[in-house]
Amino acid sequence: MQSSLRVVGTPAEPPSGTIGARSYLSHLECTRCGATRSPHALHGLCECGAPLLCRYDLAALRRDVRRDDLRGREATLWRYRELLPVQDVSRAVTLGEGFTPLLPLAWGARRGMRALCVKDEGGNPTGTFKARGAAVGVTRLRELGVTRVAVSSSGNAGDAWSTYCRRAGIEATIFVPDDAPSATLTEAALSGQRVCTFGGHNSRGGRLANAFAASHDAFCPNTFQEPYRLEGKKTMGLEIAEQLGWRLPDAVVYPTGGGTGLIGMWKVFAEMADWGWIDRGERKPRMIVAQADGCAPMVRAFATRADRATPWENPTTHAAGLRVPGPLGDRLILRALYESRGDAASVSEDVIRRETAVLARATGVDAAPEGGCALAVTRLLVATGRLDASSEVVVFNTGSGASYRV
Amino acid sequence: MQSSLRVVGTPAEPPSGTIGARSYLSHLECTRCGATRSPHALHGLCECGAPLLCRYDLAALRRDVRRDDLRGREATLWRYRELLPVQDVSRAVTLGEGFTPLLPLAWGARRGMRALCVKDEGGNPTGTFKARGAAVGVTRLRELGVTRVAVSSSGNAGDAWSTYCRRAGIEATIFVPDDAPSATLTEAALSGQRVCTFGGHNSRGGRLANAFAASHDAFCPNTFQEPYRLEGKKTMGLEIAEQLGWRLPDAVVYPTGGGTGLIGMWKVFAEMADWGWIDRGERKPRMIVAQADGCAPMVRAFATRADRATPWENPTTHAAGLRVPGPLGDRLILRALYESRGDAASVSEDVIRRETAVLARATGVDAAPEGGCALAVTRLLVATGRLDASSEVVVFNTGSGASYRV
Repeated sequence: MQSSLRVVGTPAEPPSGTIGARSYLSHLECTRCGATRSPHALHGLCECGAPLLCRYDLAALRRDVRRDDLRGREATLWRYRELLPVQDVSRAVTLGEGFTPLLPLAWGARRGMRALCVKDEGGNPTGTFKARGAAVGVTRLRELGVTRVAVSSSGNAGDAWSTYCRRAGIEATIFVPDDAPSATLTEAALSGQRVCTFGGHNSRGGRLANAFAASHDAFCPNTFQEPYRLEGKKTMGLEIAEQLGWRLPDAVVYPTGGGTGLIGMWKVFAEMADWGWIDRGERKPRMIVAQADGCAPMVRAFATRADRATPWENPTTHAAGLRVPGPLGDRLILRALYESRGDAASVSEDVIRRETAVLARATGVDAAPEGGCALAVTRLLVATGRLDASSEVVVFNTGSGASYRV
Repeated sequence: MQSSLRVVGTPAEPPSGTIGARSYLSHLECTRCGATRSPHALHGLCECGAPLLCRYDLAALRRDVRRDDLRGREATLWRYRELLPVQDVSRAVTLGEGFTPLLPLAWGARRGMRALCVKDEGGNPTGTFKARGAAVGVTRLRELGVTRVAVSSSGNAGDAWSTYCRRAGIEATIFVPDDAPSATLTEAALSGQRVCTFGGHNSRGGRLANAFAASHDAFCPNTFQEPYRLEGKKTMGLEIAEQLGWRLPDAVVYPTGGGTGLIGMWKVFAEMADWGWIDRGERKPRMIVAQADGCAPMVRAFATRADRATPWENPTTHAAGLRVPGPLGDRLILRALYESRGDAASVSEDVIRRETAVLARATGVDAAPEGGCALAVTRLLVATGRLDASSEVVVFNTGSGASYRV
């Protein structure tokens, strides 16, 4: 049920098979012990228990692939095919995900912020940035022979994985909290996959999905349990750079649940410098975590300069994508914050609601609570002098408000 | 509150102001009496009561602008700026609308259809293709000095116009039937504009909006009451051609309410031949109207080879976008059907519901009832021999299912 990429984009791209159109993936590498693994076998976590990351043949990439090669390619994340782990991009499982608009927010200028942009992820298939991780993850897992998965989600990822698995012919069982937004459940059910709801929060779902996978001969591609979803999400960083004319902004404010998006962007900012796509001297953006007061494990860890986060007790927030009490990528999130001289802050439920409405009214973007949270944190940091008002800031609206309405 | 286009697309485009970057709009022309009007003044309907269309300087376009000029431009409908009526594209009111994916539907092949594609409009800002008409219409009306509008809508157009007007600093009053999908109402209200609901169907809203406009010194840009919305929607035809490598499909199946999208595409297929962008000898697509049994004025008119449609009595369908009993563009829709050797058919509410689910499951697209209707009509026409199974067919999903969930 795969689709050709041909008609998704412009036809001006070179025929597939020409130089530069292949993946430059070289190996997998453990984020803790540094062990390397073959990219041609299916891997979950490293034997040491830590996440694996995709690594690329940087010398060959630097030699073969130039930014200008992207010109005229399809307006999806597959335009970055050399920098993705998928081997045969002609068999990509795609619904046209990625290359979402980066919108200047004039409203910011009137409040003394020089350059505020919104990266609006709501136009992605299934309505959120989760489509990026699912498209690349599902495509790569199918290439590696996976036919059955069990996935846990706070809501939107379940929808995305369900949809892309269906399209790929992979049988999926999705574990979603019983208080997830109902639109998400409808969509996952519509795609005809099995949806299991449970009381409690995201980390319980993670355990359930792993247990189900173990007993049903399925693969469990939960956040950071496999290295491919991250590669789909890193394309947000590539797009920001390309859309700004191969510059990087001063700061990226990211509503952080599992944090894969933030980690992926931080990874690709370094990769771009390695490839010669941005100046090595170019200052990388400050990475800024936005969370809700009712579930702010990364803010708490950052405040104490910890290298791990302790799980949040009794997580509560209506921004479902932020309801992740103990992110598996906590070390990597914190590393990105420290390396980038970043920051982290949380805001209340009332403030999230108010700023979601402000974002919608000021921009016309169909804002989700996660986007409202990111805008609120931006305003908080500017007001308290922790973020320079003259900074060029990219705020993420990670999904559409429509996926929340019940 | 306008935004620069720079960051929406790729930076590879030539600096604005270079040759080819201006609009080639030359005049407005009446669809009935043929009278011409200046494009620099605000016009509604022609004095004879018929709609006006935008006309371009074809000789200059043919000389100056080539398909290849589009390469590397932003992935929005503004990539077609020479073919749009907006004079200063740097002040476009944009949320990144257009250039939506055209997705091959392998499911069709298994049912004996050689090449079935879905043009998925759900990823547009505000979740539907209405964003195209609103972006171009609002931008152009602001250029012409409009500061206040009254718009009638069966649902989604109200949302789009409300949002884009807000972004443009234009005060909008939106008239929506009280049974419009609630997500639409939420979104229009969120954008902070005045929303007036009324009992009854779309044509009553048209009268209300016109009366309000007359008494409040506002402009009423209802469907076909001004010539610019159509130009935004014609970009769907440009995209289909570009995404197929500057070929046209054999048939386009379009869920038809007001019909602006169908008329716009038919207009631009002719324009493309005039510009030399497609072969004059290239056969144009059969244009096919899909409607619901409960509101099928165009199907009835087509069946009797009429040149006008009589309004449908007691229109009822859950596909809110199709609930337009007396389309103002009826003559133009029928003309497109006859000229293209097209067709028109309707299906029941149950069939629409079933095929909406089929579309979602088979493609992963977040299908709206209008998309389900178009797929159902396609299957009906193939089953009854009215559409060749070997045809290359583009079916429209005009919006996201998320905009319907209540």
